[in-house]
Amino acid sequence: MASSSTFSSWTFNGSTLAPKSAKHCCFKQTIYSISSCASHDMIPPNEKGVDWGRGRLSLKSRVQCRALEVGIKSSYSVGNKFQLEDVIEAQQFDRDTLGAIFEVALEMEKIEKNSTGSQMLKGYLMATLFYEPSTRTRLSFESAMKRLGGEVLTTENAREFSSAAKGETLEDTIRTVEGYSDIIVMRHFESGAARRAAATASIPIINAGDGPGQHPTQALLDVYTIEREIGKLDGIKVGLVGDLAYGRTVRSLAYLLAKYEDVKIYFVSPEVVKMKDDIKDYLTSKGVEWEESADLMEVASKCDVVYQTRIQRERFGERIDLYEEARGKYIVDHGVLSVMQKHAVVMHPLPRLDEITVDVDLDPRAAYFRQAKNGLYIRMALLKLLLLGW
Amino acid sequence: MASSSTFSSWTFNGSTLAPKSAKHCCFKQTIYSISSCASHDMIPPNEKGVDWGRGRLSLKSRVQCRALEVGIKSSYSVGNKFQLEDVIEAQQFDRDTLGAIFEVALEMEKIEKNSTGSQMLKGYLMATLFYEPSTRTRLSFESAMKRLGGEVLTTENAREFSSAAKGETLEDTIRTVEGYSDIIVMRHFESGAARRAAATASIPIINAGDGPGQHPTQALLDVYTIEREIGKLDGIKVGLVGDLAYGRTVRSLAYLLAKYEDVKIYFVSPEVVKMKDDIKDYLTSKGVEWEESADLMEVASKCDVVYQTRIQRERFGERIDLYEEARGKYIVDHGVLSVMQKHAVVMHPLPRLDEITVDVDLDPRAAYFRQAKNGLYIRMALLKLLLLGW
Amino acid sequence: MASSSTFSSWTFNGSTLAPKSAKHCCFKQTIYSISSCASHDMIPPNEKGVDWGRGRLSLKSRVQCRALEVGIKSSYSVGNKFQLEDVIEAQQFDRDTLGAIFEVALEMEKIEKNSTGSQMLKGYLMATLFYEPSTRTRLSFESAMKRLGGEVLTTENAREFSSAAKGETLEDTIRTVEGYSDIIVMRHFESGAARRAAATASIPIINAGDGPGQHPTQALLDVYTIEREIGKLDGIKVGLVGDLAYGRTVRSLAYLLAKYEDVKIYFVSPEVVKMKDDIKDYLTSKGVEWEESADLMEVASKCDVVYQTRIQRERFGERIDLYEEARGKYIVDHGVLSVMQKHAVVMHPLPRLDEITVDVDLDPRAAYFRQAKNGLYIRMALLKLLLLGW
Repeated sequence: MASSSTFSSWTFNGSTLAPKSAKHCCFKQTIYSISSCASHDMIPPNEKGVDWGRGRLSLKSRVQCRALEVGIKSSYSVGNKFQLEDVIEAQQFDRDTLGAIFEVALEMEKIEKNSTGSQMLKGYLMATLFYEPSTRTRLSFESAMKRLGGEVLTTENAREFSSAAKGETLEDTIRTVEGYSDIIVMRHFESGAARRAAATASIPIINAGDGPGQHPTQALLDVYTIEREIGKLDGIKVGLVGDLAYGRTVRSLAYLLAKYEDVKIYFVSPEVVKMKDDIKDYLTSKGVEWEESADLMEVASKCDVVYQTRIQRERFGERIDLYEEARGKYIVDHGVLSVMQKHAVVMHPLPRLDEITVDVDLDPRAAYFRQAKNGLYIRMALLKLLLLGW
Repeated sequence: MASSSTFSSWTFNGSTLAPKSAKHCCFKQTIYSISSCASHDMIPPNEKGVDWGRGRLSLKSRVQCRALEVGIKSSYSVGNKFQLEDVIEAQQFDRDTLGAIFEVALEMEKIEKNSTGSQMLKGYLMATLFYEPSTRTRLSFESAMKRLGGEVLTTENAREFSSAAKGETLEDTIRTVEGYSDIIVMRHFESGAARRAAATASIPIINAGDGPGQHPTQALLDVYTIEREIGKLDGIKVGLVGDLAYGRTVRSLAYLLAKYEDVKIYFVSPEVVKMKDDIKDYLTSKGVEWEESADLMEVASKCDVVYQTRIQRERFGERIDLYEEARGKYIVDHGVLSVMQKHAVVMHPLPRLDEITVDVDLDPRAAYFRQAKNGLYIRMALLKLLLLGW
Repeated sequence: MASSSTFSSWTFNGSTLAPKSAKHCCFKQTIYSISSCASHDMIPPNEKGVDWGRGRLSLKSRVQCRALEVGIKSSYSVGNKFQLEDVIEAQQFDRDTLGAIFEVALEMEKIEKNSTGSQMLKGYLMATLFYEPSTRTRLSFESAMKRLGGEVLTTENAREFSSAAKGETLEDTIRTVEGYSDIIVMRHFESGAARRAAATASIPIINAGDGPGQHPTQALLDVYTIEREIGKLDGIKVGLVGDLAYGRTVRSLAYLLAKYEDVKIYFVSPEVVKMKDDIKDYLTSKGVEWEESADLMEVASKCDVVYQTRIQRERFGERIDLYEEARGKYIVDHGVLSVMQKHAVVMHPLPRLDEITVDVDLDPRAAYFRQAKNGLYIRMALLKLLLLGW
């Protein structure tokens, strides 16, 4: 499918979706091979017999492509192994898996609100390997691990592992860090880095953002928030507002919403940062209705969700004039609230500048801080699933 | 009281002591309001129905001004809620509260010396949100939390939350981090930042220093150390030496000592960094006897406590000559020790350069490392009180 | 012994091996003294009655020189105190102690592979005081502590303790941090810093590398890896390849191998970075056979261990031509593997650049990632021994 491969090539900057030639990886006693495959409902490039006691080094076997499709429905019952061994990109998740993960996230809300906390992950060690700092994301993951009784090894200067001076490869770093921990949460500045790490690691890898590439846990928490706030995902109307050209979150959200029925998406953005054709083509190919609009008020009055994003100045280089014009154009304020339906909500991936005025915070429909909190539940759920299974 | 409001305006750089207009803060189900008030025995700007199970988001109600004064004596018994919901400034603590906190700190000494440690705060998560690094203070708080069985989320690069590039407000950052933790220990470069955080947060905030503003836990550990070393606070003679103009600690200490009876304070400092009038006026208004002296030996021979401080070079800008003159003027060395009474002690907030010579360390009256250790007990006590109550 | 004192003077840059004049150290109630002594099978400069409940401040008494030699064999039984109070340098360890530590490390492998983990060090707090970042080493120590149920206080910006601006001494910093923790793992940029810290601290210090000085845990894990991979240490043939002039690890390894019988060492390095005479003289004085060779293939065919190291560019300053010539000269690749014996292994301290080609990773004889993992077990063992004893 041209449209979707276009979409894919956006996702991976064409880097790693092409079928990989078999890699060979070997240890004192055994030699075996891995390979992976490309698909929209992708599974990670390598399957690992994860040792549930601890994420020890273990055999890797050839991937069954589209395994997620095959007999997955029956496999969400407690005690079963999680279908995924790594969380690398939004494309890994089909509708059924999302639904099952959201049920676990809901359990996590109960656990987190329980004063005694949980010791579910006691004895497990998570390494946060951040090649660029992202305090918000790091704290969210570390809180998730600790709320479940797990421990954390943390670094925000992982570049020193592989500094130009020393020049260690990401693969070598992963082979070292996997010896110290049971799961690795990695943030990297290069698109595709998480996939490379997963191809090397014998323990689960969670992608906490790799450059312009993917930030799958953000995508999941956005969809989870819509379900929690609106009560459904089929038949919803969503307005995506602001930077639709470069905003990683709105692009992933549009992609995931295509998995649900009768979804209508409105794009509201300044001309210079309008949604790109790859996503539009993808939505069309999936039969998702979408339209572009310049009238935020009219869109807001129709939508269940107004998803606002920050216009990123860094995208405009010297053209500060264009930036200033773009950022001022669509502000969510009391006026917008006044036309929104009672049950509708305003979402934002945060941090926000003035694209949502502070007085909006006071309205019950301002969901963005609850959305941030949902990131904790989604991450708790993924840590539980990757380390313990269903 | 002119004098004291002068003092206050020093404390907050006039920023936040004036009564605040009511703020509105709202969540999906409820809308309610907060306001705060100014007073010398201040309580935090907002009251929170802290959820002792976990510092969850909860209703805020209108503050009773001077609540600390009202029927507080009866309320120190075990199981009662702590009177304070945040630790923002030295002014929050009246004499009775200080005494009660010191008793808890003494229990903490016993707990910390007990090899098995304590699990008192098991399941609680403290976030150290440091906008400027202060390794000493951070490690002291993190040790305190862990000695009580609690867990820690740590960041020393919190500026990245709200970097100029992204421009998130402190308030937005707090609303996010409070979702990940049960209590926030915050260090900030701006005076008044801790108060702003407390006005936003639904969980307890401890001020670990906000710029030239307050560092209340340092003030408490200083008073606690005097009581532990001298055995009393009424009727003591204290010599404050060194940088009295800019030294945050000596200013807070002078303020707190005014709460006790028959205290005599001596100011010994180079002319360029002498104690400012706001404190002198405040002491006078509280009936505290004080005098300035240029004779360290004579003062040392009379005092129970010689509190030495570092002359901060950064205060002198280009005038290195003035700095060199100032820093050499009053050194605590063996000569000073030789005139001090047997029961007297030398204190210093640390780090020290050469304002106390190294040979003084060998004398039992050198209390400054014990003073640093007392910071651990005071912080353990405050964490226990804010999260569990008396 | 000239040769060995030459060796010593290399080890300590002549800084601290000469007998120290008695130091005086004093606290409120007591005054007592410490001194230390120099010897090849050195013990730390100070003995401390470590409080096993918690590493509290305790009396220091005069050191018995060569105590390790005296009746040590009988003292490895469970429950006995560890002979060492600090881990500062490779010279502290004699053959018997190494053997006993390796047995504990082997137990640690079992503990780490056990899913439930261990709570052996529950209630203990380790401070990682890093004056220069070394993420790999820090994570290894922190993982070791957490795998045993202990807690960690971490800092990678310890320079801020003693920044030029503030100018605190290392000794003052140690006196503060020892109040917050039970054991300190220190990385420093100055040779001899760990020894200074140990002379001050009342709790155990582990040297995680002090500048060009020592990195004893690396030395131990190298020897441990040889025993684990080859099954013996007596009668082995070891080829040391690459940067032998500046490589801290190969120098320590050569020193430790001299403790075993019938060891043969081959030095294979570019002329500009050949092994220095101090080590050669030392080996000769200990009756260890060694020779230099320019033929890696021939050496590789004879050796049980080929220990490759990275040529450090920073050593060559402007002479990039010399660097380029040196780094390319001896590469371990498939050709070298093809002449190596089946039971032999390739080791490397990591990080590696291209001095070992990536295809070598696939061979079972590539031991360097297992070697890195062994660092975890050695550090677990040392933490257990220093805090709990045998």
